Amino acid sequence: MKTFNKEELKELLLTQAPNALEEIFEEIHPVDILDALRDLEDDKYTILKKLPNWLVADIFEEMDEDEQQEALNIFSEIDQFKIINEMSSDEITDLLGNLEPDRVDRFLGNIDKEEAEEVKELLTYEEDTAGGIMATEFIAIKEEMTVIDTLGYLQATGLDAETVYYLYVLDSNEVLTGILSLRDLVTATFDTRISDIMTTSVKSIPVNMDQEEVANIFQKYGFQAMPVVDSLGEMLGVITFDDIIDIVREEDNEDIYRLGGLSEGEAVDGPVIDSVKSRLPWLLVNLVTAIIAGATVGLFSSTIDKLVILATFNPIIAGMGGNAGTQSLTLIVRGIALGELSKENAKRVFLKEVIAGLINGVAIGVVVAILGLIWANKPIFGLVVGVAMILNMSLATIVGYLVPVTLKKLNVDPALASAVFVTTFTDVCGFFFFLGLATMFLKYLM
Amino acid sequence: MKTFNKEELKELLLTQAPNALEEIFEEIHPVDILDALRDLEDDKYTILKKLPNWLVADIFEEMDEDEQQEALNIFSEIDQFKIINEMSSDEITDLLGNLEPDRVDRFLGNIDKEEAEEVKELLTYEEDTAGGIMATEFIAIKEEMTVIDTLGYLQATGLDAETVYYLYVLDSNEVLTGILSLRDLVTATFDTRISDIMTTSVKSIPVNMDQEEVANIFQKYGFQAMPVVDSLGEMLGVITFDDIIDIVREEDNEDIYRLGGLSEGEAVDGPVIDSVKSRLPWLLVNLVTAIIAGATVGLFSSTIDKLVILATFNPIIAGMGGNAGTQSLTLIVRGIALGELSKENAKRVFLKEVIAGLINGVAIGVVVAILGLIWANKPIFGLVVGVAMILNMSLATIVGYLVPVTLKKLNVDPALASAVFVTTFTDVCGFFFFLGLATMFLKYLM
Repeated sequence: MKTFNKEELKELLLTQAPNALEEIFEEIHPVDILDALRDLEDDKYTILKKLPNWLVADIFEEMDEDEQQEALNIFSEIDQFKIINEMSSDEITDLLGNLEPDRVDRFLGNIDKEEAEEVKELLTYEEDTAGGIMATEFIAIKEEMTVIDTLGYLQATGLDAETVYYLYVLDSNEVLTGILSLRDLVTATFDTRISDIMTTSVKSIPVNMDQEEVANIFQKYGFQAMPVVDSLGEMLGVITFDDIIDIVREEDNEDIYRLGGLSEGEAVDGPVIDSVKSRLPWLLVNLVTAIIAGATVGLFSSTIDKLVILATFNPIIAGMGGNAGTQSLTLIVRGIALGELSKENAKRVFLKEVIAGLINGVAIGVVVAILGLIWANKPIFGLVVGVAMILNMSLATIVGYLVPVTLKKLNVDPALASAVFVTTFTDVCGFFFFLGLATMFLKYLM
Repeated sequence: MKTFNKEELKELLLTQAPNALEEIFEEIHPVDILDALRDLEDDKYTILKKLPNWLVADIFEEMDEDEQQEALNIFSEIDQFKIINEMSSDEITDLLGNLEPDRVDRFLGNIDKEEAEEVKELLTYEEDTAGGIMATEFIAIKEEMTVIDTLGYLQATGLDAETVYYLYVLDSNEVLTGILSLRDLVTATFDTRISDIMTTSVKSIPVNMDQEEVANIFQKYGFQAMPVVDSLGEMLGVITFDDIIDIVREEDNEDIYRLGGLSEGEAVDGPVIDSVKSRLPWLLVNLVTAIIAGATVGLFSSTIDKLVILATFNPIIAGMGGNAGTQSLTLIVRGIALGELSKENAKRVFLKEVIAGLINGVAIGVVVAILGLIWANKPIFGLVVGVAMILNMSLATIVGYLVPVTLKKLNVDPALASAVFVTTFTDVCGFFFFLGLATMFLKYLM
């Protein structure tokens, strides 16, 4: 069979009656069909309506939330039910999570009963916990079965494309007692009992675990999928690695965006209005903090009036503090996100930051002290510049540690607003140290 | 079987003769044993030396590079050969990549011949390309085989824990013609021919593709593993999702660190000397740029001398430019990393940035103009402040787009040094616009 590039796929979608193409579509990844549809713009929905329901369901699973909502509404309600019936429980849950409650009820009343029950349960979990990302489709077997029994069972029931490469061994109370990978199944002789080849030291995820922690566990162990259990050990669902890659990207992006002063959800290629909405609130917060920094300078107007060279060194001292603070802030925010900063090492890390801040502060402080001495041709001016720099950079490094750690303790995302706090602090302190010292020693400086 | 927590595992490692524990260790994930060993500090290597070679090899695969090198050297050369013989080709390649050439040759001469050949080939690929991350272990089958033939073959040969959940169908020239998942294998009846159930529209990765692009493809399609082929379509190896999660984290971390002015490899919990080495070079670069910014202010000393309120507004205008620039920089750096900024949409994105910069600039500009008017009690001062702010923020947004895009064109990582360029630019321009305008209109301002 030939593989299609995007242009060929667009051609195919446009010119042929999609009903005739079912067999071809089975071989093409739905995300490729979605890519081609996106490119077709005007004809996108006309073609989507002609595709078979199972394929529309697969394509829906690849869409972003907004795109999904828009696409769903082009179908009649009857067709919406049919499409949703083809989707997996976790995807239905994500889709319904964005709809009004009465519409959710109508959907749940019109899809497969068993699936509706599962979705109802999934809807009770928080979106960013293990329960919110798991799927409820998995294959349960009993430990008394043999390999040939199991193969017969799988051949009879089939395996959904959503299903993972593990079989889960449950006891009569639905409690997870073992795991068997398809790898172990196919390499064992037919008469082997499942109990002899299953793994019994099972790692499972508690249903209410935060998704960031789930991602760190997956990364640590490298499993393809992990079972999710309730507090009694009853198996509720599975989480698969492909959800994890998305979560890792989502959480990393959130950190990067927040550190850069952007709101989540701003797309590179989105409309201008989104960019303004994403950025302007942060800019306004920053404006308040910039005014506080400016006002600090204003406090020392009379000193600057007497010694205008202070205005030249002002941005150097404040700026370097900002840089040092951003460095330790970045390290700490990542350390928290990746679970590398723990209660056990917090004190040691703090101490390390203090010393590193001091060393870097002294190194940069000496350089600017010499610069100040030469520029102003006064040793004491160099001393004031140098001491202010050391104080500001050391403090900046400490603040870069304390702000995210404090936010974390308050259960606020450490990346959120950290950058604003840290740079405000370093600006205000930088100006205060430098201009304050200069005011104290003004008579020696003039 | 019981599962062990870290304390129990430490106890077990310390008190029992590890030889007696082989069966227990088979059920424990090597990363958990490594965690326990790390905690044991002094006894770490004594215990490691007592463990069976296959387990040491598994534990090695979980270690960081430095840790691996240190641990390797506690073994005699003979034991080193034995341990390495138990590792998979891609892990051996990573390990040997850090050794001196003559030591590499000695290793290759003392391990399994076939494996040595594979490792030699893997060593020829760049570390951050598909060839550098793939493993050469995979199961190849022929399309004429039936399901029962294949099961018999797998039962006879066994499947390594490293092997993926796909079987690869190769023709007589080793060219990849189809893929069969274990899922499809176990659900098909025994007499089914492989050619009837294999997928022929195979997505494969060219051996020289950059790892960042590989990660984006995995994320797009959600595959568990993908085959790597050369330019003739011959299959060379496989890349698995667990490598991809590591790469995503590595690439994201690199972006975050570089945007925050840190060098890669600085660990949260590392020694002070690492922190100084990671940060001081960036701080020195920043110092140069801060001095340029300060010198720009110095150019206008006589203006500030006449109108000291300018020193108060200076940091506000420069700071807000920095914030606006950092926002668009962050968005563009991520857009490039995630493959969302392309040739096709570059112009549209640029235009969006220009307009967003202008809108935000005007919004903030109006606020500070009013503030300036009130503070200085002179409408013309408000006008100067407002215009300087609009100019600086608009330009900052454009620079935030242009710097990473230009670095990318020059084949430099867009995250590298971008932040330094952008904030220097916005500082210098902010001071220049504001103090320049103030100098021009000085007689109306006093």
